[in-house]
Order: sequence, then structure tokens, then C-alpha cells
Amino acid sequence: MPPASPLAVRLPELPPLAGVRLGAAAAEIRYHGRDDLVLVEFAVGTTVAGVFTSSKCPGAPVDWCRAALGGGKARALVVNAGNANVFTGRAGRDACLATAAATADLVDCPAKQVFIASTGVIGEVLPHEKLVSALPALHASLREDAWEMATRGIMTTDTFPKAATRTARIGGTDVRISGIAKGSGMIAPDMATMLCFICTDAKLPAAAMQALLKKGVDASFNCTTVDSDTSTSDTVLLFATGQAKHPRVPADGGAVLADFANALNAVLLDLALQVVRDGEGAQKLVRIEVTGATTARSAKRIGLAVANSPLVKTAIAGEDANWGRIIMAVGKAGEPADRDKLSVAVGGVWMARDGGVVPGYDEGPVVQHMKGWEVEISIDLGLGRGKSTIWTCDLTHGYIDINGSYRS
Amino acid sequence: MPPASPLAVRLPELPPLAGVRLGAAAAEIRYHGRDDLVLVEFAVGTTVAGVFTSSKCPGAPVDWCRAALGGGKARALVVNAGNANVFTGRAGRDACLATAAATADLVDCPAKQVFIASTGVIGEVLPHEKLVSALPALHASLREDAWEMATRGIMTTDTFPKAATRTARIGGTDVRISGIAKGSGMIAPDMATMLCFICTDAKLPAAAMQALLKKGVDASFNCTTVDSDTSTSDTVLLFATGQAKHPRVPADGGAVLADFANALNAVLLDLALQVVRDGEGAQKLVRIEVTGATTARSAKRIGLAVANSPLVKTAIAGEDANWGRIIMAVGKAGEPADRDKLSVAVGGVWMARDGGVVPGYDEGPVVQHMKGWEVEISIDLGLGRGKSTIWTCDLTHGYIDINGSYRS
Repeated sequence: MPPASPLAVRLPELPPLAGVRLGAAAAEIRYHGRDDLVLVEFAVGTTVAGVFTSSKCPGAPVDWCRAALGGGKARALVVNAGNANVFTGRAGRDACLATAAATADLVDCPAKQVFIASTGVIGEVLPHEKLVSALPALHASLREDAWEMATRGIMTTDTFPKAATRTARIGGTDVRISGIAKGSGMIAPDMATMLCFICTDAKLPAAAMQALLKKGVDASFNCTTVDSDTSTSDTVLLFATGQAKHPRVPADGGAVLADFANALNAVLLDLALQVVRDGEGAQKLVRIEVTGATTARSAKRIGLAVANSPLVKTAIAGEDANWGRIIMAVGKAGEPADRDKLSVAVGGVWMARDGGVVPGYDEGPVVQHMKGWEVEISIDLGLGRGKSTIWTCDLTHGYIDINGSYRS
Repeated sequence: MPPASPLAVRLPELPPLAGVRLGAAAAEIRYHGRDDLVLVEFAVGTTVAGVFTSSKCPGAPVDWCRAALGGGKARALVVNAGNANVFTGRAGRDACLATAAATADLVDCPAKQVFIASTGVIGEVLPHEKLVSALPALHASLREDAWEMATRGIMTTDTFPKAATRTARIGGTDVRISGIAKGSGMIAPDMATMLCFICTDAKLPAAAMQALLKKGVDASFNCTTVDSDTSTSDTVLLFATGQAKHPRVPADGGAVLADFANALNAVLLDLALQVVRDGEGAQKLVRIEVTGATTARSAKRIGLAVANSPLVKTAIAGEDANWGRIIMAVGKAGEPADRDKLSVAVGGVWMARDGGVVPGYDEGPVVQHMKGWEVEISIDLGLGRGKSTIWTCDLTHGYIDINGSYRS
């Protein structure tokens, strides 16, 4: 095990969540001597929403989940680490079918209510017999209080387990939202696909949940990047067990879910930032605040261009507040920008403004800020009201070490 | 001086080119004890074409050249290394004006026939008095045989000087095309902007030249990437002195320029590949051949997505023929792709085909190929006839070393 990221956070207490039982087991799919298979069983009536990778070459489990999502119901989730079951052709589809069928037998539901996610190497056939034969004992061991075990069971190159939990009120009743995630490199195929599973005891119509999840993921996971490489397997699933006793939520959600939406967004952002904190080789968490763009979409693209620029990321690793590179990255984004209206601040100190350097700005606090674990960059385009916040990490020798020698 | 890139090539013989006199001098703008200022004087009647960065935050010299290009005539080129004159506001424009005025005086031409390029740090005011005061002596020293001196005078972090020369026939008459370039990191602001200057003794209408240059740059420089970071100063200029005695070329060029176009394209590609060979930290030159895409544009985007993927580039650095990462990069490009029709080869050996690994492919030659200085990746989409070739280099610790500590 490599040492934990210097940006790691502590695993929170994860209390039981009504309608959810979990467990993990060692199926020896790729790793040895550790859990690599996680099973979660949901109460009858659980609804589900999901958001997946935009890759044109998605893994077989992503195809499976997309199809299963049509039913809006879930009874089980099966996740394996070590093999992504991506680009495995017919064998990949067969593995999903066999896994779903075996799990459906155990929990007594239609196969389409079993959700599947896999993470690990691309292009190797998943030995699903190992997985299937480990399921009965694993199913017998499921418990309400095994959240930490599940969190650890889905890790690949993650250096710390990732989870978050919040409570929210729906019509005067408390509900809980708990989620777990893995990813080290938001998006790093072969090994570090981003997976995130969130459960709530609220009783939610699938359509309302899907809308909330889509919006929440757009503002959290989709605003983070470690290395610009989109995985073939990125998956975020939200399960609602319906065990809490709150007033009925209408099919289209609406105002009654306002507090729930806030809490869900907080869980998503918490988990997304944990993934960035565990970015491969990361030594600094970077927050990029873009304002004054023509639209929010434009602001997001500019923020991502800065976040994905190897020159900006290496400068941050070198603790150099190199605003020239930030300007370069804004300029290459292909979005509306006017050099002479552009301003850039690092750690709250405006260094570049109106097409030139700010004369006599105080470099002291900037140098100090760059030495910390968290770096804040502000970019104002001076054009409109579009804004966006993007998170990333720096690019260090650690990234090269990890990715220059992973598979071999 | 860092050691030359392991991918470096030898500087070719650069014979005099009628109508071009060059020289270099030490203006001490940033570097000490080396030439950092280059002046080129062209014969009366020289025509010019140019292609520039697509950055929305271009440097003042790029603005200057774009405006000057309207006249279609050139008498001089002034290039300094060490300071990019980018994001320097009014001072940047003033520096261009002063440089052009002083040069125009020396060569006796309108200021708008002086072309200017600067490369180096962003955001520092260019001390143009130093530059201007070095010009008279430099002008007095111009010679027809100083091509190598000029090539070396425009280097920044380049580890070897870059030049290429070819001959071509226009209507039975030989003409010469010679070019010099700098760049180490095709695109690395602060220091390693890509600049390229090409001269020919052909007599060419500016409009015909502009069309040829645009097409040639699209197929050469615009098909290369070191780190995906587009400079604020990228500049390619083509000067035609008109000293060769060939039949008149019509305003729109046409068939008489077919051989010239081929030779120009060869010079552009030669120089573009020299820039990639000097990519920061580069240990391997990578050629990515994309075929079977729906369009040529789509093929180019897919090739660039692969070429810019940090995970593909680190795998190549690690000599790992990791085709799973190539599939990931194809999938994230946002272009039409069908996982089940996609094929990938490395070093000519097809490893992935029809949505799965090629059973029993011979890994021996692939491993051998990955150990060489040049790596070839072939991607067939199986969808249409669109194709493109992209060149890049690997991503190594050297890149982090250079860029994590440049400015400070």
C-alpha cells in the first residue's frame, strides 16, 4: 500500500441506513489478501437514479446499468475492483448477465433490478465464475453496519477510503443520505475509474431522483478533473430505500425536496473532492473560481482548460504562482475572452488585471499561499455574469511514477 | 545548457537564399552571454504570409503581425528570445511600435513591412530600449550565410537548433525553401513558444502564399502537440523574396505551385517534428495514425485526444503498450466511435479489434517496438474514410522537472 495522500481526510462515522445491508469479500479477481467484491441489498421498493461516463467506449457494466435504469427499481448492487470489464466484447456482456442472474436468485428479484459496476484493468476478461461463486457466502454475511467495509472493498489505487453522510428534512421528517466513492485520478482508466454509490432512506420517485442526481453531479463530479482522462466506467448511482416516513413526494419532486437536494449536493461535492484529494500524485488541492464569463457553460470550459493545463498544474506543484500560464490556458479555451478585460488572482491577491500585471502587488502572501495544501485561483473575464467553480490537483512526479509503470 | 534531446537531429547545411540577409546579437534582454536578438532583411518586393496562435490572449507581436500582414509585403523580421511581450498592455504595443520604427529606419521601409516575434516569459515588460539600441550594429553585420546563427539566436529552452531546407521547381526553374523554428513543448508559454520562419527565393503573390501556408501548417504544426497548451505567441511566417527567375505565378497560385507546395509542406513537417523531438522531457517521438473515422476532422480530434492523454503519454514513457488507455482516449474524444468496430495497433501489431483483445497476438515485437525512440500507434474506427496523422512525445519526469521550477 502506498502512503495516504497528504490531502487525505478521515472516514466519517457511517450509521446504518434503513433498507440497506452491505458486505464485502475477497473474490481474488486480481488482488490477493483483500476484499475486492462488494454486495449491497436494498429493501423492496427501492428506487434508483444513475449518471454514467460520456465515453463512446463504455464498459459492459455501464451498458448494463443504463438498460436496467429504465425500470427505476433496484434490489442489489454488485461492485468488483481489479478488473473493469471494459472492451471485453461478448464475454463482458456474459459476465454482467451471469452476475445479475446469480444475485437476483439470492435476493429474489428480477435480474434487471441488480446494478453492476466494475473497476480495474481494461481489456481483460472478467473471471465472473470467481465473482459468482463468492456471492452466496457474501450475501449471507450482509449487515446494516458494514459501510466502512464496503468503502474499502471498492478501492483500487485509492490511498484512502471515501465516504460522506448528511441528514436532510423532507416535510418535517429527517432522512439520511450516505455515499461511498472510489477514484484516484478522477478519471484514470486501467485502474482508477471513478465510482460513487449513494443511498438514502427517503421515498423518492425515480424521475425526481434522476433530475436531482444529474444536477448534483454536474455541479460536483463534473466540475473536477485530475488528468483530463475520462474513464470508460465512471458511474454514480443513487438508491432510495423509501423506509423513512415522510409525506409523499410528487413524481416531479419540487419544493418539498429543496433541503434534500442541498444535502445530496453536499454529499456529492464532498465525495468528488475526496476523489480529487486522492488524485494520483496529488500534493495540492486546487480550486478555480471563474467569474465574469459570457455564460456559466463558458465559465466551466475556461475553468477546465486551466485545471487541465499541464503547465498550470506543474507550476502549482512547483509552488510558483505563474499567472502567465493561467492566462495562456484561458486564451486556449476557445471561449469568449478579452485579454484587456481579464483579471487573475492567486490566494485572493489580484496579480494581473486589465491586460497587464498589477503594479506593485504584494507577492509575500501569494508565495505563502502557494506553499499550502490548498491553492485558490480566481479568474474574472470581465465580460458577463457566467460563473463556475472547478477543482483539480497539481501534476507531480508521483503521477508519472504511478502511471508510467502501472500495468507492467 | 541541458543536454540535447535524445531525439535530436543534426542541423542541415543551410545555403544562402537570394534576397535574405541575417544576423544575431546579444541584446541581454534576459539571457546573458548568448545571442537573443535576430534580424533578417529581405529584398525589396518580398511578399509574406502568416499563420498565428488561436489564443484569445495573443501577445502584442502577434497583434502587430496580423495587422502588418494586410499589406502583403515584408522588408524585415525582428525576433527576440527571453521575453514574450505578452499581457503587457500598452507597454507591449509601444515596444512593437518602437521596434518596427527603428528597424524601418535602418532598412528604409514603412514600419508595416517590419515583422516582429517575441518568445519567453509572459507578463514582463519587454525592455525594448535594449533591443532598439542593439539594432544598428546588428544591421551592419547582416550576411547571406548566417542562417545557423539566426537559428541559434531564437532558441529558449530548445536543446538543439532547428532548420530545414528543400528545393522545388516552378515552371522549370529551381527555387529554394529554407526555414528555421524554435519550440520545446510545441506549446509551452513562459518560455517555449513555437516560432517558425520560412524563406523562399520564389516570386509569389501573397494571397497564393497565404493559402499554401495555411494548408501546410494545418497538416504539420497543427497536427503536433507536446502538452496540449497553446501558446499566446505561436507564429509561422513565410517570406518570398522573388529573386528566382521563374514564370509568373498567378494571384491564386494553382498547378504551377504543385511542386513548391510539396516542398513547402515537407519543410513545415520537418520543422514541426523537430519541435516535437525537442518536446520538454521527451524520450520518444510518437506517431498516431487514425483511419476509418467519419471525417478527416473527426480523425484529427481523435488523434489529438490520444496524443494529449496524460495516461497514454505516461504509458509510452513506461514502454507499456497499454492499448486500454488508447481506447479510453478514443472514447473521451466526443467524436463518433463504435466500441465494437474499433481496432488498435502498436508498432504494426493489431492488439485490439472488434470490441475485444486479439486472441493470442504476438507481444514480442510490440515490447521491442516500445523500447525504441519512435512509437507508432494505429487506430481504425471502422466507420468511414476520414483519416489523420498526429505526432506527439511521451510525458516523463523531465517535463515535471522543467515546468515545476522554470520561473522561480
